[in-house]
Amino acid sequence: MGDDGALIDIGDGRDLVLTTDTLVSGTHFLSTDDPFSIGYKSVAVNLSDLAAMGAIPKYVLLSLTLPVSDEIWIEQFSNGIKALLRSHSVALVGGDTTRGDTLSVTLTAIGFVKSDTALRRDHACLDDDVWVSGLIGLGSIGLLIKQGVLAFPVEEEQDFLRRLHEPQPRIELGQKLIGIANSAIDVSDGLVADAGHIANQSGVKIIIDYEEIPVHEAIKNRRFNQDIESSILGGGDDYELLFTAKAEHMLRINSIAAELGLPLTKIGRVTQGVGVEVCDGNGGLKKDFQKGFDHFATRK
Amino acid sequence: MGDDGALIDIGDGRDLVLTTDTLVSGTHFLSTDDPFSIGYKSVAVNLSDLAAMGAIPKYVLLSLTLPVSDEIWIEQFSNGIKALLRSHSVALVGGDTTRGDTLSVTLTAIGFVKSDTALRRDHACLDDDVWVSGLIGLGSIGLLIKQGVLAFPVEEEQDFLRRLHEPQPRIELGQKLIGIANSAIDVSDGLVADAGHIANQSGVKIIIDYEEIPVHEAIKNRRFNQDIESSILGGGDDYELLFTAKAEHMLRINSIAAELGLPLTKIGRVTQGVGVEVCDGNGGLKKDFQKGFDHFATRK
Repeated sequence: MGDDGALIDIGDGRDLVLTTDTLVSGTHFLSTDDPFSIGYKSVAVNLSDLAAMGAIPKYVLLSLTLPVSDEIWIEQFSNGIKALLRSHSVALVGGDTTRGDTLSVTLTAIGFVKSDTALRRDHACLDDDVWVSGLIGLGSIGLLIKQGVLAFPVEEEQDFLRRLHEPQPRIELGQKLIGIANSAIDVSDGLVADAGHIANQSGVKIIIDYEEIPVHEAIKNRRFNQDIESSILGGGDDYELLFTAKAEHMLRINSIAAELGLPLTKIGRVTQGVGVEVCDGNGGLKKDFQKGFDHFATRK
Repeated sequence: MGDDGALIDIGDGRDLVLTTDTLVSGTHFLSTDDPFSIGYKSVAVNLSDLAAMGAIPKYVLLSLTLPVSDEIWIEQFSNGIKALLRSHSVALVGGDTTRGDTLSVTLTAIGFVKSDTALRRDHACLDDDVWVSGLIGLGSIGLLIKQGVLAFPVEEEQDFLRRLHEPQPRIELGQKLIGIANSAIDVSDGLVADAGHIANQSGVKIIIDYEEIPVHEAIKNRRFNQDIESSILGGGDDYELLFTAKAEHMLRINSIAAELGLPLTKIGRVTQGVGVEVCDGNGGLKKDFQKGFDHFATRK
């Protein structure tokens, strides 16, 4: 249960990969959010768990709890579910609808991966490079924009809000990293927290160079604003992949980036030790980053 | 999606069977209920879906939403989960805990069945006998006892309350009915509603003889009390199996009953037509039975 999903050897050369995630109104989204986005994101976060293991997603089961039966809401929500399933050829094979006071969505995703090849959290090796896909901090800055804490020109705001509401699970990337990455995880709790999961489970230390972290053009010059720094290091909801790989794989990783049209950026390295260290550009250490998403502590 | 679970051919002579169910505080249980029972029942209703298809349960994933993090509650809840998993050699392979305003439990159960042998709802045949396992109405009469609507001597009340809180999925029975039953379902929505699912999906009519329905000794003489009649015909939460089989299988069915120490009772037959008819002992028809459990209509 340390990985994003459970691996089960079904004995025909494949492992079954199973994962489940619940999104709850008031915690992961607002009940007034666009139902399309709620559906879309529910699928995205589950497929992202499979992506982090290099699995090919095949099926999902949906369990929906609703305060009232609202057909228009359900139709838009279903459209969000179907949009992402369709683009990855995943089938909705079952489900359950229940009445309850709080809107809540649980998805279970089922995929397959060739036996003993799944990407894991506990296989990072000393001297591995640490890589991340895409841009980091988009989702949590999107949330700050939505809450009115930060503002940007409208077009740029769309980039952040789109990531918050319709994140893209990096399914193709996960599969291509099999045989290349020694460890992987998706950035859902926050960059430092998720790097910490790999470090702890692999028994190593991860050093991240703060200025190497790829961020949106709009915040490049505001990297040291406190809200933005917290979002980059501690915000979750990006659903990019963080992975480690031997230095000799750099060229292959760069060619995967080109093939997928998805930036892959080296942001640090694996060393002996414990935990995660974030270096600023002056040889100093950042220490007061928000420590990632904890449902029972940091947020309501 | 018409069956209790989804069937997926994984290509090695087995079908994967997947099912998911959510239990929500205020709808399926009270937040003040014994956490052991909440855990136990969450597993039971999911394994019951697999039982109704003749599948062997192997794995479950748990997604728990909690208003507050209460370690004692979680430990007792986990004990309930584990108790039933252990007795059926099922492994908890993954999960997710989330904070949300309403206590809610979603379980996904994964099992296997030999390809093309799973029990289905849509294969009932004309002239099949209709059978049911165990006793009917225990769960919903348990709820009436809990609500103070009905009262019995304490020892008898325990039988009803135990079924309400810790129903027994009929896993062994389901597997033994493969090759014998033409159709099967678990009694979760209510006897008539669930018979209706088989009738509708098989394109037949099911006739049930009210006085043949096996009930607890304590209510045998109160069969025509209105609350009790509604509970027998319309109450769900029994998690017995309702199945249809050719008349020639009666002896084999009786020997399965003896082997399992579980009563199996013939309560009706399959004929041409539509829907479900319930006959009283005098050649009349019962028409005003509560039509089973509908989360958005009959109950809060």
